[in-house]
Amino acid sequence: MSQGRFITFEGGEGVGKSTQIRRLAARLTEAGREVVATREPGGSPGAEAIRDLLVKGAADRWSPVTETLLMYAARRDHIERVIRPALARGAWVVCDRYADSTRAYQGAAGGTDPGLIAAMETFVLEEVRPDLTLVFDMAPEAGLARAADRTHAETRFESKGAAFHARLRQAFLDIAKAEPERCEVVDATQDMDAVEAAVWRAVGQRLGHG
Amino acid sequence: MSQGRFITFEGGEGVGKSTQIRRLAARLTEAGREVVATREPGGSPGAEAIRDLLVKGAADRWSPVTETLLMYAARRDHIERVIRPALARGAWVVCDRYADSTRAYQGAAGGTDPGLIAAMETFVLEEVRPDLTLVFDMAPEAGLARAADRTHAETRFESKGAAFHARLRQAFLDIAKAEPERCEVVDATQDMDAVEAAVWRAVGQRLGHG
Repeated sequence: MSQGRFITFEGGEGVGKSTQIRRLAARLTEAGREVVATREPGGSPGAEAIRDLLVKGAADRWSPVTETLLMYAARRDHIERVIRPALARGAWVVCDRYADSTRAYQGAAGGTDPGLIAAMETFVLEEVRPDLTLVFDMAPEAGLARAADRTHAETRFESKGAAFHARLRQAFLDIAKAEPERCEVVDATQDMDAVEAAVWRAVGQRLGHG
Repeated sequence: MSQGRFITFEGGEGVGKSTQIRRLAARLTEAGREVVATREPGGSPGAEAIRDLLVKGAADRWSPVTETLLMYAARRDHIERVIRPALARGAWVVCDRYADSTRAYQGAAGGTDPGLIAAMETFVLEEVRPDLTLVFDMAPEAGLARAADRTHAETRFESKGAAFHARLRQAFLDIAKAEPERCEVVDATQDMDAVEAAVWRAVGQRLGHG
């Protein structure tokens, strides 16, 4: 059986990733693919329990280093229980956030030692790396306003302040610039149909549509 | 103000560490020291929340790599909020389990890549290393029988099977052999007063009693 494909969506708060993941999953399913749409932190029962610790409570509940370790604990569980088995059976995995979010949130914006993050990628991700990463870009003020319109308790990262969110946006753009063969920047200020078309075009050009 | 001292107690299940930690803490307090007696996983509110995930549930709830990351997330929070501030103000910190437990449980007995554990020690412990480690040694069958006499829900590691616990004992002995300047093996089959005397002698010889 053929190896599947692994597509990740990245970006700041409120950039519209989850809507576009649903649309991409629907189109890939129509094209005859098995699709596993999932998210981080979370995506497996163990990782969802860790997510609760991460996304709730005060902004300073955890330091950036502790966050990095919790994120990677959740990620490892998600990889072992969901992502790796899905890819092995030939499914397309579409994931809302992955390792780039740790580089951006805990690394570039949070100040975690890059050596720790590199060690995590080596020993925890191992070979489970995205084939394509769509970086949704938007001014943080616009994204945070959209995120605030949602009614939910998971506001820990949203509450981290404007300077944090500005560093975050730049970090995602820097990742895309450093790894152009893997990453495509999507202008997330466009209307939803235009974003959907941009995503579908990127998937087709880089991976084929199946 | 003088830097404090950091003493860790290590060993398998049911070897009698917690009784001896209480006794050592009482004697050091009598000797005029500020003592912080604590435990891992746990020891700070955040780390205790992570402990709940680690010590409850089925033996295979987490893989050894995920466990390593959760243990180190809890450890980092404990270091930042409790251990490092206590040492900085000159206190003696006496801790039930620390980094050697990860080397033994998740590493030697669990099969986690030693490279991951080494990276954790470099980037997460940083300079917070024990001045003295007391390795409580006992045949695992005896320790597990004692642990089973306690009424508690934290049985996840106890339930891991005889081969696991045999590897664990050997792992702790190997650590003590590799780092004799830091570690002292204590025969935990002795009666409690004899163990207390052995602990007090080791502390006096290696660190002074204050």
